[in-house]
Amino acid sequence: MGSTYGKIFKIATFGESHGAGIGVIIEGCPAGVNFDSDFIQSELARRKPGQSRITTQRKEADEFEVLSGVFEGKTTGTPIALIIRNEDQRSKDYSHIAAQFRPSHADYTYQVKYGVRDYRGGGRSSARETAARVAAGALAKLLLADLGVNIQSYVSQVGTLKLEKSYQELDLTLTESNAVRCPDPEMAQQMFDYIDSVRKQGDSVGGVVNCVITGAPAGWGEPVFDKLHAEMGKAMLSINAVKGFEYGSGFEGVTLLGSQHNDAFYIDDADKVHTRTNHSGGVQGGISNGEDIYFRVAFKPVATIMQDQESIDQQGDVAIVQGKGRHDPCVVPRAVPIVEAMAALVLADFYLRNRASKV
Amino acid sequence: MGSTYGKIFKIATFGESHGAGIGVIIEGCPAGVNFDSDFIQSELARRKPGQSRITTQRKEADEFEVLSGVFEGKTTGTPIALIIRNEDQRSKDYSHIAAQFRPSHADYTYQVKYGVRDYRGGGRSSARETAARVAAGALAKLLLADLGVNIQSYVSQVGTLKLEKSYQELDLTLTESNAVRCPDPEMAQQMFDYIDSVRKQGDSVGGVVNCVITGAPAGWGEPVFDKLHAEMGKAMLSINAVKGFEYGSGFEGVTLLGSQHNDAFYIDDADKVHTRTNHSGGVQGGISNGEDIYFRVAFKPVATIMQDQESIDQQGDVAIVQGKGRHDPCVVPRAVPIVEAMAALVLADFYLRNRASKV
Amino acid sequence: MGSTYGKIFKIATFGESHGAGIGVIIEGCPAGVNFDSDFIQSELARRKPGQSRITTQRKEADEFEVLSGVFEGKTTGTPIALIIRNEDQRSKDYSHIAAQFRPSHADYTYQVKYGVRDYRGGGRSSARETAARVAAGALAKLLLADLGVNIQSYVSQVGTLKLEKSYQELDLTLTESNAVRCPDPEMAQQMFDYIDSVRKQGDSVGGVVNCVITGAPAGWGEPVFDKLHAEMGKAMLSINAVKGFEYGSGFEGVTLLGSQHNDAFYIDDADKVHTRTNHSGGVQGGISNGEDIYFRVAFKPVATIMQDQESIDQQGDVAIVQGKGRHDPCVVPRAVPIVEAMAALVLADFYLRNRASKV
Amino acid sequence: MGSTYGKIFKIATFGESHGAGIGVIIEGCPAGVNFDSDFIQSELARRKPGQSRITTQRKEADEFEVLSGVFEGKTTGTPIALIIRNEDQRSKDYSHIAAQFRPSHADYTYQVKYGVRDYRGGGRSSARETAARVAAGALAKLLLADLGVNIQSYVSQVGTLKLEKSYQELDLTLTESNAVRCPDPEMAQQMFDYIDSVRKQGDSVGGVVNCVITGAPAGWGEPVFDKLHAEMGKAMLSINAVKGFEYGSGFEGVTLLGSQHNDAFYIDDADKVHTRTNHSGGVQGGISNGEDIYFRVAFKPVATIMQDQESIDQQGDVAIVQGKGRHDPCVVPRAVPIVEAMAALVLADFYLRNRASKV
Repeated sequence: MGSTYGKIFKIATFGESHGAGIGVIIEGCPAGVNFDSDFIQSELARRKPGQSRITTQRKEADEFEVLSGVFEGKTTGTPIALIIRNEDQRSKDYSHIAAQFRPSHADYTYQVKYGVRDYRGGGRSSARETAARVAAGALAKLLLADLGVNIQSYVSQVGTLKLEKSYQELDLTLTESNAVRCPDPEMAQQMFDYIDSVRKQGDSVGGVVNCVITGAPAGWGEPVFDKLHAEMGKAMLSINAVKGFEYGSGFEGVTLLGSQHNDAFYIDDADKVHTRTNHSGGVQGGISNGEDIYFRVAFKPVATIMQDQESIDQQGDVAIVQGKGRHDPCVVPRAVPIVEAMAALVLADFYLRNRASKV
Repeated sequence: MGSTYGKIFKIATFGESHGAGIGVIIEGCPAGVNFDSDFIQSELARRKPGQSRITTQRKEADEFEVLSGVFEGKTTGTPIALIIRNEDQRSKDYSHIAAQFRPSHADYTYQVKYGVRDYRGGGRSSARETAARVAAGALAKLLLADLGVNIQSYVSQVGTLKLEKSYQELDLTLTESNAVRCPDPEMAQQMFDYIDSVRKQGDSVGGVVNCVITGAPAGWGEPVFDKLHAEMGKAMLSINAVKGFEYGSGFEGVTLLGSQHNDAFYIDDADKVHTRTNHSGGVQGGISNGEDIYFRVAFKPVATIMQDQESIDQQGDVAIVQGKGRHDPCVVPRAVPIVEAMAALVLADFYLRNRASKV
Repeated sequence: MGSTYGKIFKIATFGESHGAGIGVIIEGCPAGVNFDSDFIQSELARRKPGQSRITTQRKEADEFEVLSGVFEGKTTGTPIALIIRNEDQRSKDYSHIAAQFRPSHADYTYQVKYGVRDYRGGGRSSARETAARVAAGALAKLLLADLGVNIQSYVSQVGTLKLEKSYQELDLTLTESNAVRCPDPEMAQQMFDYIDSVRKQGDSVGGVVNCVITGAPAGWGEPVFDKLHAEMGKAMLSINAVKGFEYGSGFEGVTLLGSQHNDAFYIDDADKVHTRTNHSGGVQGGISNGEDIYFRVAFKPVATIMQDQESIDQQGDVAIVQGKGRHDPCVVPRAVPIVEAMAALVLADFYLRNRASKV
Repeated sequence: MGSTYGKIFKIATFGESHGAGIGVIIEGCPAGVNFDSDFIQSELARRKPGQSRITTQRKEADEFEVLSGVFEGKTTGTPIALIIRNEDQRSKDYSHIAAQFRPSHADYTYQVKYGVRDYRGGGRSSARETAARVAAGALAKLLLADLGVNIQSYVSQVGTLKLEKSYQELDLTLTESNAVRCPDPEMAQQMFDYIDSVRKQGDSVGGVVNCVITGAPAGWGEPVFDKLHAEMGKAMLSINAVKGFEYGSGFEGVTLLGSQHNDAFYIDDADKVHTRTNHSGGVQGGISNGEDIYFRVAFKPVATIMQDQESIDQQGDVAIVQGKGRHDPCVVPRAVPIVEAMAALVLADFYLRNRASKV
C-alpha cells in the first residue's frame, strides 16, 4: 500500500531503482487533454540524473513509452500507463550492501516491514520512483495550463546559503538558467560552488525548494481533512528526503499578532476580490481564495555519502557501510521539477473534486 | 468531501459550530478494545472551551453520547458513532457577519465553493469540529496504549517566547500542570502572561506545538505517498490554523552535512537495533524505525480578534467586520490534545495497515 | 469496515437494532439541494415496521433528526448527519439467543469474525440498518428528481406467485395502493393472502423486487470494474436477504442468439438516439445509454421464523433456537423503498463521478 | 475512473484492445508470496484467444513481463506491474466502424461519456482487458492456495443446454478436459456442437458459468455494504457480457419457505461447525461461514456477430454495421478462468481486510 495518490485524478506508481523499469498509471484524467509528449519528456529531462557535475553521474535517458489511454494525441478518459525503462543500473555497486543497512536509508525499515527487500539501489525506496511522478505531473500541468494555472518552483536555500528575497522580488524565469535552479544568478553561483565543494568531500548537504502557484481560482480544496494545504503538505512530505513543509506565513507567522497576520479583503479595479496581504498563502479554511499559493519544502542532506559509516548488518552485527557508488551531493536542484509535479497532481485532483461541490 | 480520514481505522466527522451538534463515526476500530468512556471524556475536557481566562469563554460541557458500536464496554468491530450536542451557541453574536467575510477566515472561500454557507460561528469551518477528532483520537489512544505506544504533546512556543530545550531535557509530566500546557513551569508562566496581555488588547498570537511518540515499533508507515511523516503532516496541517509541519531535524536539518545528519545504527545491550542520533525523527523511508517519533506544528494567530477590520461583504461592497464575540487569544494550549488525537489516529491506521505487509 | 458506500456521494451508516439508534452521514451531496424533510420522512414511512398485518409488529416511529449539513432548508455541501432513535426494542426477546446461533442469521459469522457481538436483534446485521439507507436514498432521490430521473420498484414475485407482465404492461402508480406493493391489484391480493397464510404458520417466504429507472441520461457509469450494473448489483446484494441480481435480459438472456439479443440503434423523430429493443437494460459497456434501466432482485425467505429450530450455541453444544419475537413473514413489501434508495444512491454517485469525464 | 478493484489487495488495470498492450498493477499483495511465473502464464493460456475453433481466431501469445515488485522469486510488498503486449491487432478490421456504433457494444456510450474514443476493437471496453485480471487473479490464487482455498469454475449452461447436476454431483477435475470447460463430457460435446453451429451461422449465444470455492475459513467478508457476496457480485458483473449473478439458493430460493431454506448448524465429528444444508452459499450476513461458497454468473450472447445489423453513425445517420472481423461465438469457455480470477481477487482482499477485525 501507499503507492497511489489522488481521489479523482489518481496516480499509481510502480518500479524499483534496478528492476526492469518504473512507471505510472494515471487514472481519472479527463478525456480531451492534449497529450504533449515533448513537454512530458522535457519535464523528465529536468529531473533526470547527469545534468551537471553537481548531480549524480548515473546515466538514464528517461525516455517514456505510452502504453494506453491516449488516442490520436488526446487523452481518452481511460487509464494512461507510462513506463520508463532502467538502463544504467550497475547493480553490482550495491552488492556490498545486500546484507547491510545504510544509515538514514530505508534499508532497515523495509527489511523489518516486509521481511524481504530488493536492496539494489534502495529498490522501491529509491528517489528514482519520482521520475514516474514527474511524468504524471507533467500531464497534470498540461491540464492546469489550459485553466491558466502556472506552477513554478526554485531553490531558495542550500545549507546555510539562503535567498532572503520573496518570490515577488525574484525573476522566476531565470530559474532554469543555472544548474542549481536558483533564480538569483549570484546566489546560484555561490550555491553551485558550495555543492561542488561538498561533493569533493564525498559529503552531501540539504536545502529548501520554494513553490509559487499563480492563476488558481477560488474554491479548490476541501474542508476539514483534505484541506488544500494539508494535501499539498502530504504530497511534498512524500517526496524522498523531505523533512518539513510550511505555506504562507509558515513557522515565522507564529510570532505575529492576529491584527498583523489577518489578510484584509478588498475589491480591485476589475471588481475582483483580493487580499491586501497574503499571509494565508492563498488558502483559507483549506480552500483556495484566488491569491497566489506559495509554500516551502525542506530537504535533508541525502543519506548516500562517499564516506565509510558505522552501521549493522541483517544478522545484527557491526558493519562498516562503504562510501561508493554514485550520488547527488545536494538533492534540491533535481527536486524542483518533482515539487512542481506533485503540486500539479494535487491541484488537478482538487480541480476535478470541486466539480461536485454544487448542484 | 474531505471530512473522512484514514484507510482502515477511519473517521468521518460532521457538524457545525452552531447546529444541533457535532460528532464522528469511527469505522475500522478492531473489536475488543476496552471503551473507556471516562478517558474519552477527560480528553474532551482538555480541549473544551472555558478552561482558563486565556481560552474562549464559550461554555460547552462537551459530553459525548455513544450511539453505536460498543457493547458491554467493548468495541464490536462495527461503526462507533459519537455525538456531542452544542449548547452555548449564541448564534446572534454572528448575525452581523451573515453577509460579511471575516479576514483570514473561511467565510469567503466557502461562499465561493458552495454558493451557500452556515455563517454562524464559521459553520463547518469552526475549530469546534476538532472535538469530534479528540473523541475519536481518544479511542485510538486506548488502542495504542495497549501496544505500549505513548503520545505526548506540549506547547514549545508562543509568539517569540520559545522553549530552547529538546523534549529529552523536559519533564513532560508537567505539561498538564499549567493552563498553557508548556512543561517548563517558568516558561509557561511567561507564556501565560503574554497571552493574557494579547487577550486584553483584543488581539491574538500564534505558537508551536511539539509532539513526541514513544514505543512505536519499527514497520509502521507505507512507502512512497503514504509515508508515516507524510500522513502525519497532512493530519497536522488539517487542524485549524496550522501553517507548518516538520519532523526530526526539520527545517534546521537542511544546514547539516550528510555525514553529520545520518543516524548510525547500533545494537544495544538488549540486542535491540537503535540509532546513535535521531535526526530521522523515528522515520526512515516513510516507515517507523523504532526510535522516538517527534515533530513540530506551527499555529498562526487565530483570525478572530476583538478589533474592527476592513473587509467586504457578499455584494462586494466595503464592510467593517466588528470585533465582538468570544475567542481564543492563542490556540496552542487547546491544540495540544488535538495534535495528540490526530497523531493517534494516524498511528492506529498504520498499525492496522501494517498487518497486511507480510504473508 | 464495510459500512460506507459511494465514491463522491458517499454514505456511512451506523447503529444496531437495539442500541441507542441508527443513522447515516451523507458526504459529498452537492450544496444547494432542497432538503425536503417531509419527503424523507415519507420514504422512511414506506419502510418502517408495523404497516400492515403482513409486516413485523415492532413499532418504530422512525422519525429522523438532522444534526448537520443543512442550513435554511438547503444542503451546504458539508456532511449531513441523520439519526433515528430506537424505541420499541424489547431486547429481552433476545436474551434466549445471547449464546445461540440462529440458523441462516449472521450470529455465528459475526462471532467468529469479531469475537464479540451485540446479539440483541442481530445487532449490526439487523435489517433495521436499512432505515439509514432509506433516509440517505431519499436525499439522493431529491437530487435526481431535479435531473428528471425517476426510480420505481415493485414486488413481482412472492414464493411461486409471479407477475408475468413486463413493467411496460403495468401501471406502476398502483404500487403503493396495496400492502404488498405489487402494481397488479389482483396479483397483489393473492400475494397478500399467501403471505398471511405463511405468517399464520409461523413461517416465511421469499420474493422478487423489480426496479425501473426512467430519465437517466446516457453517460453514467464507469468502465471496467465500476460498471453501472456492477455497482447496482453490489448495492442490491448488500441489502439484507438478497440472493440474486439480474439486469436487462438477465439469466433468461443467455438462451438468446446475438442476432436476437442485440439492441439496434435508431434515431427517433425528436432526433434522440434510441434502441429498438432494450435487452441491455439501459446499460452498455457499464455506462447508461439513455434507455430505461431495469433490474430484478431476489430475496430469500427471512431467517427468523416462529418455529423451533436445531442449532448450536457458543460452546459448540446442540441447542434449540425457539421461535419467538416479531418478524416479517415476507420481506419484499418493505424492501421496495430500500431497493429504490440504493438505486438512487448508486445513480447520484455516478452522476457526480461523470462530471469529471471530460475537460 | 473505474479501473481499480480492491481495498487492500488492489489492482489497477490499463490498456486497450489495439494499443501497445494491456497490463495491471497489483498493490497490497503481502511480501513473501512465491511468484510462480509458470502458473500465471498457464492461467493466461486458459483465457487466451485461439484455443479451439469455437473461440476467436485472434492470435495472441499473451506472454507477460514483470516490471516491478518481485525479487528473487518472491513478492516484496511493493507494487507488481505486469504487462502483456498486443500482437495480432489487425486494426484495419475496425476502420469500418470508426464512425459507427455497433449494437449492444460500448461504442455509443463511450462516445457520449468521453467525447473521444479509441474505436479499434472496442478500445478500453474490449474483453481483452480481462487478460490483466487473469494475471492478477493468478497471483491471488497463489496466495489463497497457501491458505488452502481452492476456486473452481465451469460452464453449466450454453443457450438452452443446461447441466442439471449440482457441483457435488460433478467431477470438476474434468472441466479442463474439453474446449467448452464443462465437467460433464457428454454435455460438453453437445455444447461444443451447438456453439460450432452458431458460429457457422455467424451468430453468438449466451451461457452460464458456475463457481465453487472450497476451503475458505469463516470470517471473510464485511458487514453492510461490503458483504462477501455483494463484492463477489460486483466483481462478476464487472466482467464483460455478464447480465446476472446469484449465490447459494439464488433466484430459485425465493420460492422456498424459511423453514425449508434455513441452514441448521451442527458440530461434526471433528468438532467443526457445519450447516446441514447450504442454501446460504457459504455466506451469512455477508461473511463466510466456512461452508463451500458457490454462485452462478449469466453471460449474454456476445454482441459481435458476423451479420449485417441496423445502426447509426456518429452523425446520427442510419448505418449498416457489417459483420466482419473475428469473434467468439460463445464467451463462456474463455470466461471460466476470468470468473476464477475475479473470485480470487475478491477473496484475497477480504482475507487481508479480515486481519484488522480484532485486537
